[in-house]
Amino acid sequence: MAVVMKPGANEEDIKRVVRFVRERYGLRVDVSRGEFQTVIGLIGNEDRVDFEQLAALPGVERAYRITSPYRLVSRNFFPENRVIEVKGVKIGEGNVPVFIAGPCAIESREQIFRIAREVHEAGANILRGGAFKPRTSVHSFQGLGEKGLEYLAGAGEEYGMPTVSEVRSEKHVELVAKYVDILQIGARNMYNQDLIEEAAKQKKPILLKRNFGASIEEFLSFAERAAAQGNKDIILCERGVLPIGRGRQFTRYSLDLSAVPVIRKETYLPIIVDPSHGTGRRDLIYSMSKAAIAAGAHGLMIEAHYNPDEALSDGPQMITPKELKRIIDVCKRIYAVNVMEDNMP
Amino acid sequence: MAVVMKPGANEEDIKRVVRFVRERYGLRVDVSRGEFQTVIGLIGNEDRVDFEQLAALPGVERAYRITSPYRLVSRNFFPENRVIEVKGVKIGEGNVPVFIAGPCAIESREQIFRIAREVHEAGANILRGGAFKPRTSVHSFQGLGEKGLEYLAGAGEEYGMPTVSEVRSEKHVELVAKYVDILQIGARNMYNQDLIEEAAKQKKPILLKRNFGASIEEFLSFAERAAAQGNKDIILCERGVLPIGRGRQFTRYSLDLSAVPVIRKETYLPIIVDPSHGTGRRDLIYSMSKAAIAAGAHGLMIEAHYNPDEALSDGPQMITPKELKRIIDVCKRIYAVNVMEDNMP
Amino acid sequence: MAVVMKPGANEEDIKRVVRFVRERYGLRVDVSRGEFQTVIGLIGNEDRVDFEQLAALPGVERAYRITSPYRLVSRNFFPENRVIEVKGVKIGEGNVPVFIAGPCAIESREQIFRIAREVHEAGANILRGGAFKPRTSVHSFQGLGEKGLEYLAGAGEEYGMPTVSEVRSEKHVELVAKYVDILQIGARNMYNQDLIEEAAKQKKPILLKRNFGASIEEFLSFAERAAAQGNKDIILCERGVLPIGRGRQFTRYSLDLSAVPVIRKETYLPIIVDPSHGTGRRDLIYSMSKAAIAAGAHGLMIEAHYNPDEALSDGPQMITPKELKRIIDVCKRIYAVNVMEDNMP
Amino acid sequence: MAVVMKPGANEEDIKRVVRFVRERYGLRVDVSRGEFQTVIGLIGNEDRVDFEQLAALPGVERAYRITSPYRLVSRNFFPENRVIEVKGVKIGEGNVPVFIAGPCAIESREQIFRIAREVHEAGANILRGGAFKPRTSVHSFQGLGEKGLEYLAGAGEEYGMPTVSEVRSEKHVELVAKYVDILQIGARNMYNQDLIEEAAKQKKPILLKRNFGASIEEFLSFAERAAAQGNKDIILCERGVLPIGRGRQFTRYSLDLSAVPVIRKETYLPIIVDPSHGTGRRDLIYSMSKAAIAAGAHGLMIEAHYNPDEALSDGPQMITPKELKRIIDVCKRIYAVNVMEDNMP
Repeated sequence: MAVVMKPGANEEDIKRVVRFVRERYGLRVDVSRGEFQTVIGLIGNEDRVDFEQLAALPGVERAYRITSPYRLVSRNFFPENRVIEVKGVKIGEGNVPVFIAGPCAIESREQIFRIAREVHEAGANILRGGAFKPRTSVHSFQGLGEKGLEYLAGAGEEYGMPTVSEVRSEKHVELVAKYVDILQIGARNMYNQDLIEEAAKQKKPILLKRNFGASIEEFLSFAERAAAQGNKDIILCERGVLPIGRGRQFTRYSLDLSAVPVIRKETYLPIIVDPSHGTGRRDLIYSMSKAAIAAGAHGLMIEAHYNPDEALSDGPQMITPKELKRIIDVCKRIYAVNVMEDNMP
Repeated sequence: MAVVMKPGANEEDIKRVVRFVRERYGLRVDVSRGEFQTVIGLIGNEDRVDFEQLAALPGVERAYRITSPYRLVSRNFFPENRVIEVKGVKIGEGNVPVFIAGPCAIESREQIFRIAREVHEAGANILRGGAFKPRTSVHSFQGLGEKGLEYLAGAGEEYGMPTVSEVRSEKHVELVAKYVDILQIGARNMYNQDLIEEAAKQKKPILLKRNFGASIEEFLSFAERAAAQGNKDIILCERGVLPIGRGRQFTRYSLDLSAVPVIRKETYLPIIVDPSHGTGRRDLIYSMSKAAIAAGAHGLMIEAHYNPDEALSDGPQMITPKELKRIIDVCKRIYAVNVMEDNMP
Repeated sequence: MAVVMKPGANEEDIKRVVRFVRERYGLRVDVSRGEFQTVIGLIGNEDRVDFEQLAALPGVERAYRITSPYRLVSRNFFPENRVIEVKGVKIGEGNVPVFIAGPCAIESREQIFRIAREVHEAGANILRGGAFKPRTSVHSFQGLGEKGLEYLAGAGEEYGMPTVSEVRSEKHVELVAKYVDILQIGARNMYNQDLIEEAAKQKKPILLKRNFGASIEEFLSFAERAAAQGNKDIILCERGVLPIGRGRQFTRYSLDLSAVPVIRKETYLPIIVDPSHGTGRRDLIYSMSKAAIAAGAHGLMIEAHYNPDEALSDGPQMITPKELKRIIDVCKRIYAVNVMEDNMP
Repeated sequence: MAVVMKPGANEEDIKRVVRFVRERYGLRVDVSRGEFQTVIGLIGNEDRVDFEQLAALPGVERAYRITSPYRLVSRNFFPENRVIEVKGVKIGEGNVPVFIAGPCAIESREQIFRIAREVHEAGANILRGGAFKPRTSVHSFQGLGEKGLEYLAGAGEEYGMPTVSEVRSEKHVELVAKYVDILQIGARNMYNQDLIEEAAKQKKPILLKRNFGASIEEFLSFAERAAAQGNKDIILCERGVLPIGRGRQFTRYSLDLSAVPVIRKETYLPIIVDPSHGTGRRDLIYSMSKAAIAAGAHGLMIEAHYNPDEALSDGPQMITPKELKRIIDVCKRIYAVNVMEDNMP
């Protein structure tokens, strides 16, 4: 449910609504302050709530139910785009796309420092790197753990880039939050409500990846989990869904680019695209990066390594910093076309 | 199997190979003449063929097996891009994208003439319109039939646009070919080998749409059906696959844009995209058109109508000619970015 | 729309309704005569039909709209199970399951006669065999054509089994109908409305296979195509849908057995299962046959060959007549459990 | 890698191999003792391991690589079926199927005690009930938590049934293990390697549900995660995958019953089926339960409630204890047919 306050409502009016909802119904609330209006959302089961009574409180313009399973992150709840700022980098509508780049896994101090320098020179503005790797096989390389985070933080600082790394387990949340600027929830953990809630409590931006079998409705419903903890600094990331059709598959996953304009309509949160995992093929990243930006993505997340063939994981989908530069350059030109068109009468 | 002739091979050398294959093995052949070299393909089961003997014939450079189920349309067989020309419009690599537009169904002479004029003014260069509609329900409008084709041909002539229309049944192939310039095989008929072969025999270009459950391998294998009839003027069209995930679906299908760069690598045939059926939502067509062109598509196929809400079929996914113009304009700018980048050192 | 006649309505009442619908609205009708009541269905677009007027005609009990895209084959339209009889073999609810067996492709007179004898001895009661094979690759064996049909008909007659064979193309419909007792529409042609309609006109039972990407709603909507031609002798066949999930697939398709009870609820038509194509693995056919019968299937369609490893097509999914016998025997026992249970108070 | 010991190998031989692998390569090992032979598995990256050297140690019969991502749970590694015993109930090949039943969520002491009594009388032998519910919406009922576990344990004790409940979060693992006999990992957490490992360490049986988007290969790879912790008391559970096809869906998920015989071939672990979540429809549970047992499942997991329509969650898929009794009875008859057939010459 959304309670929209009148443009002239004062702080006391807002507090009155919040108190009323808490005391009368025992529900938590979410207060979103926009440029002109404030919207108050109810968290939890609203079946017993009396809308008319709420709408009659001083300063309230109207109160209405939102039927989708995501409410707090819905544009129907709050219409203004959210721009997330991390150490000076802005992510979201109205800003140049962000380019998050780095290796799949942090392998050594030397590796991450060298890659940081090279992707920075290529134009990337956020540094990624995995320290706790989610792996299908218990028999594979699982990441460097805290040592890796330390290297990542060091490299980010050295080259002036905020950092992002996946937090795979609830028990690592505080540790990862201690080192990195953005906490990534991987595709396999998109349905992991406890992990999302733990991560959201750290008060750092969340990068939430869509599960490969999840509908957009489910994706946004789990973003709602973070929002319900009071953290709306959520960056959504499309990274490919299960491919359809029998026989040989040419890509690991199937990048669902129509999710980009759909999500832009459904929520005010930024949506980025990961063409590396989304295709699993380095020779497709150039084309799919362009397509993602043309579709309206607010950024890209790309795996890069100075020596893709020797990377300890995900080598086949990693590109060189030189290729990254070419991608960033062309994507900025595509973005310029988008902006020019959107500004035409 | 591909038999690559030496650059200096003469007509007699080619005929010798053809005769040898036909007489010795009873197989049909396909002769592809490139700028520098000629490649001869064998059609049918080659298990008994003696490669070494073939490779030893005069004028033959080498002979090798192609293991994929599509051979004649494979880049491994023949590397040069195919550009298809219809009444002056060129479709394929190295040319400005084509814009195929028109209503889902032809409803009347007035309707198709008016739409033809309006999409022509908007920048479209090929006119589409359905006369024999494939329909899930036997209880729905099934199209105007021959009368519709007549109107379509008239409108195409009036505004100097080649035409395309779906041929749904073998029994209509000759009729449709009598009126239109490009024969469309719809997504539901992609696996209909007899229809594809009948259509290919008409010696007019084929526009083959990918089935929503087909892998790219299957898609190209059925394009091979047309090529094996000696007709390689095949325009491939991605139009969305089955969406993944439970619950509310935001799009009718899921446009598989990574199919575009994959298909460009696998075959020399042009690949276009249909964002109308691919999304089923008019408010997504602008974004997905841009994305398709950015991904490298050689053209777009878009449903347009002066009054989308009154269209007898597919109204929710139809746009106005005015919106079409906006799409064509921005797509040309995106294409310009592609070309500029590809030409950079 | 369904017009349910009163139990005591006479022939004149029925004709009056039919005339009324035809003359007033130009629609075709379908007349279903049950043990106690007759139901009249309208074919085509009923938007303009005045229900109240219809309901007021003499002998009419009630008239109501059916909103699903399939109406004539819906249980909501007509509640009695349909049992199809072919040369003494009964297919449908209340009868022992039918066992349709034979090779994928008819390879020679000797082959089909030998297999016919062996599957007959194993307990099969309908003989299958392909003469016009649908093939992905133009380079594969395409079937013996008319010669094959001739052999199949001969073998069926010799061993007292009705026959079924796929009709792949509209141009072969009459030819196939001349030789076989049941016309099969393959999974790839499930969306081919013209082929279904042509086949239905032959007044022989249709065996319609579900497309691997089709929902049950679509499946029944295309069965409706045959029913609208006045032919309701339609045997539905579940044969596997596209498998979900990445990486190694253990089966070619994924047999959707919950389709069996769902379809039994939605329609009065019989539903059988093809575990051969549904799994693509001979070692799974025993288990999945049992499961299909336990789920309520009215029969099975199984590929069998005396020498599976030498079969010209689909060898990996073919079993021997000896294995077939074991399957038929156990399935009859499972069926006996079903019957016993269903008869318990 | 599997190191198969000779039938006559003694304890010292086994220890020697274990020491060798640990000290030389720093890898963990898994020792599986069969009736006749012992097999030693290596855990971790074996790229550097010298097979010949290992095979030459005293008491070793042979050493070979297993290429699939699951090894310890593979039949290629260890051929004997695993039977898991919990408080006298045996789960696995050669035993009557187990019937796990109970409500979706524990709602009160009265509710779970009443249901426990009723499902016990119906023939169920394990009691289920959710205390920490995984929910898509943050706005729904989330379960009673520890209170619920206490009630569940009490009810299980009262009626002599072992209990199972889902553990959704790492932080609850010890708590859930304190009360229940079998720890369930839900479908949404199948990819949650940390949770699986934490749960496995509790030395209680694990019930691992397949994710709705997971291939069988991935499913077994995550069972491997538990096995690598030294816990092979793993009960696998098929509960439906994402449905295919557009338009109206008749079931929430699509029960993949061919997974049952496939999994029986791939691993020695027991596999059960959950037709409640697998269909989402109470009217399909009877048919699909029979089909699951006919396909070879070692048990069923079914949601039951004395008043399905008033259940706080999953009402549409819950059945009454009376219906449960009917299902258990018929499934035992189907199982008897299976056993009789398997014992035939």
